[in-house]
Amino acid sequence: MFSVTVRDHMMIAHSLRGEVFGPAQQLHGATYVVDATVRAETLDADGVVVDIGQLAGALAEVVGALSYRNLDDDPSLVGVNTTTERLAQVVADRLAERIHVGGVGRDAAEQASLLVTLGESHVAWAGYERDL
Amino acid sequence: MFSVTVRDHMMIAHSLRGEVFGPAQQLHGATYVVDATVRAETLDADGVVVDIGQLAGALAEVVGALSYRNLDDDPSLVGVNTTTERLAQVVADRLAERIHVGGVGRDAAEQASLLVTLGESHVAWAGYERDL
Amino acid sequence: MFSVTVRDHMMIAHSLRGEVFGPAQQLHGATYVVDATVRAETLDADGVVVDIGQLAGALAEVVGALSYRNLDDDPSLVGVNTTTERLAQVVADRLAERIHVGGVGRDAAEQASLLVTLGESHVAWAGYERDL
Amino acid sequence: MFSVTVRDHMMIAHSLRGEVFGPAQQLHGATYVVDATVRAETLDADGVVVDIGQLAGALAEVVGALSYRNLDDDPSLVGVNTTTERLAQVVADRLAERIHVGGVGRDAAEQASLLVTLGESHVAWAGYERDL
Amino acid sequence: MFSVTVRDHMMIAHSLRGEVFGPAQQLHGATYVVDATVRAETLDADGVVVDIGQLAGALAEVVGALSYRNLDDDPSLVGVNTTTERLAQVVADRLAERIHVGGVGRDAAEQASLLVTLGESHVAWAGYERDL
Amino acid sequence: MFSVTVRDHMMIAHSLRGEVFGPAQQLHGATYVVDATVRAETLDADGVVVDIGQLAGALAEVVGALSYRNLDDDPSLVGVNTTTERLAQVVADRLAERIHVGGVGRDAAEQASLLVTLGESHVAWAGYERDL
Repeated sequence: MFSVTVRDHMMIAHSLRGEVFGPAQQLHGATYVVDATVRAETLDADGVVVDIGQLAGALAEVVGALSYRNLDDDPSLVGVNTTTERLAQVVADRLAERIHVGGVGRDAAEQASLLVTLGESHVAWAGYERDL
Repeated sequence: MFSVTVRDHMMIAHSLRGEVFGPAQQLHGATYVVDATVRAETLDADGVVVDIGQLAGALAEVVGALSYRNLDDDPSLVGVNTTTERLAQVVADRLAERIHVGGVGRDAAEQASLLVTLGESHVAWAGYERDL
Repeated sequence: MFSVTVRDHMMIAHSLRGEVFGPAQQLHGATYVVDATVRAETLDADGVVVDIGQLAGALAEVVGALSYRNLDDDPSLVGVNTTTERLAQVVADRLAERIHVGGVGRDAAEQASLLVTLGESHVAWAGYERDL
Repeated sequence: MFSVTVRDHMMIAHSLRGEVFGPAQQLHGATYVVDATVRAETLDADGVVVDIGQLAGALAEVVGALSYRNLDDDPSLVGVNTTTERLAQVVADRLAERIHVGGVGRDAAEQASLLVTLGESHVAWAGYERDL
Repeated sequence: MFSVTVRDHMMIAHSLRGEVFGPAQQLHGATYVVDATVRAETLDADGVVVDIGQLAGALAEVVGALSYRNLDDDPSLVGVNTTTERLAQVVADRLAERIHVGGVGRDAAEQASLLVTLGESHVAWAGYERDL
Repeated sequence: MFSVTVRDHMMIAHSLRGEVFGPAQQLHGATYVVDATVRAETLDADGVVVDIGQLAGALAEVVGALSYRNLDDDPSLVGVNTTTERLAQVVADRLAERIHVGGVGRDAAEQASLLVTLGESHVAWAGYERDL
């Protein structure tokens, strides 16, 4: 199994709903360092999983639509408790959509899975992995 | 599949038994940077794999019981060759026990697996993964 | 010259005032990984610059007073444009106060300087250094 | 499942064939930080997956045969488009050969898999995983 | 003293002249992770050392003019032994030129110094610091 | 001012004397990731601060003489409280000796200073800087 990963980041404000979150129920924020990994059983004719430039571009678009915002006010996230795990899923699903419409230069059917990891600090991170 | 990871560390003395270890048969020591990852197929009602604060607290207790000690004299490790791989298993098993008694705020049955990785330097690390 | 550094972090919301900041004028947020370095020409009788546990504790208090907040509403920061550089200064000045009242177990007069660095992502950080 | 990882690096020149690579079609170069992970279901009598010193030595030999070279002129890579993914496979296959001839001190049949990851920068990496 | 740092990277081929370099006399290559730090005694009216977006843009231009090339054939580097130290100076001098013509949004006279560090692997890096 | 840095590591056991150290008064251990930086105003005829291979070799010898040992029993450290700060000084002084006898291929008089930093974990490090 082959894999390729690109890294980007986003800086957002948000608050979390639920007593378990303690002070994180207050409006605060985070930098998420975002790693997106695509896996495939084979390489394409160029010898890559996907074109790294196109993958980085697609990730930049997904991350850019979330960055420099207060996620509590984002119409696309109404009702979503934006924990790190859930945001990893949001980023993965949006990136998968782009892959399915051909945004990273290879048929999605040839790609096995997508893993998105969000690093929220030097001591905590979360991820979501799904099929493509 | 979702995952969440927290990082802590421990500083221990020990020696390894076996000619293969060369100079590491002498009493020496290590800082282990400890990453504990819990995986689950679904998020709970709060939108998390497990509460990150409770996971970090449980890991701190497990790591604290080993830290600032000479593991060669630890009664709980008699007969254990405390290689990095084996210590990863010790930490994982002890953390799993806490998860099973409810120490991280979610039914262990809803959690798929636990991975513990011990970084012993900038050029070597080892891990152990088990079901929950 | 000796130095000792401890690392902590804080997660905050804020917005920046000034056209130069583009989208960062909107309410957003950041995780700042905070490194505090104390320098001294000599070590004390215990062989340290300052006690690392006390320095870490003092930094945790300073960082804790800022974390999980919207800095735009923080009464102690009225009129402050909370850029990464300026926040590094805020953290350094507050930590220096604690050092001057004896919070890190050594006379401040024996300590040469204090450097605080705030990492805002994997590609950008800022710092502030001052005398003690 | 247990794992052990060692890190090394190599510095090479090469060019990539295919319009998708844009400016990387020109002769350029890369430092690859190489992580080799061996996984096994059980530890051996010494309590390790494989001897870390022997694994590091085997990796150093594989990496050394590629380093400080122009891969476009390497007779062992004729016809290979040396993308990061493909080089990860080349390193993994060569390391697996050494493991199969006994180069890391444990029967290859007792080792489950081998993962090689090549970091090409702080924002991109690729990997290849195979059975042993 | 305040500072701000941005990170970028470049991937180049080159060879080094001189017996001391051993195998690095052969054509090989490197990824350099490039950190550019600007220091200033004061912040400007916006509360920054320099605008981080403009600094990142200026660094990207300097790095882009060197990346994906064989530096042995670069007309701007004729007669230059492109060691990591020397390349750090080349990047710093070119970035300083841009700062002096106003490329980072603040009078160069208000900026104290510029430090450029080039990381060539996980175990080696070099830097060059100069006045502005 | 130019600089070059190489990284190595050592794994040691020790205990610290003094109530301030709390549980670290017990025999425990540490991995120290050791960074050695040499600074010089000018480059030599080859375009380097010092030969990086020779510097790495000298550092490996200094670090090797301390590694895989219990520093409490090291005859060369009798009476030394082996805090991270103090060990940084020990490594720096021993490395400076090697530089002065010509071990890194350049006259020590042409080298301005030496900085040694010891990382004891992902959240703490200490350093010592001296003239050459």
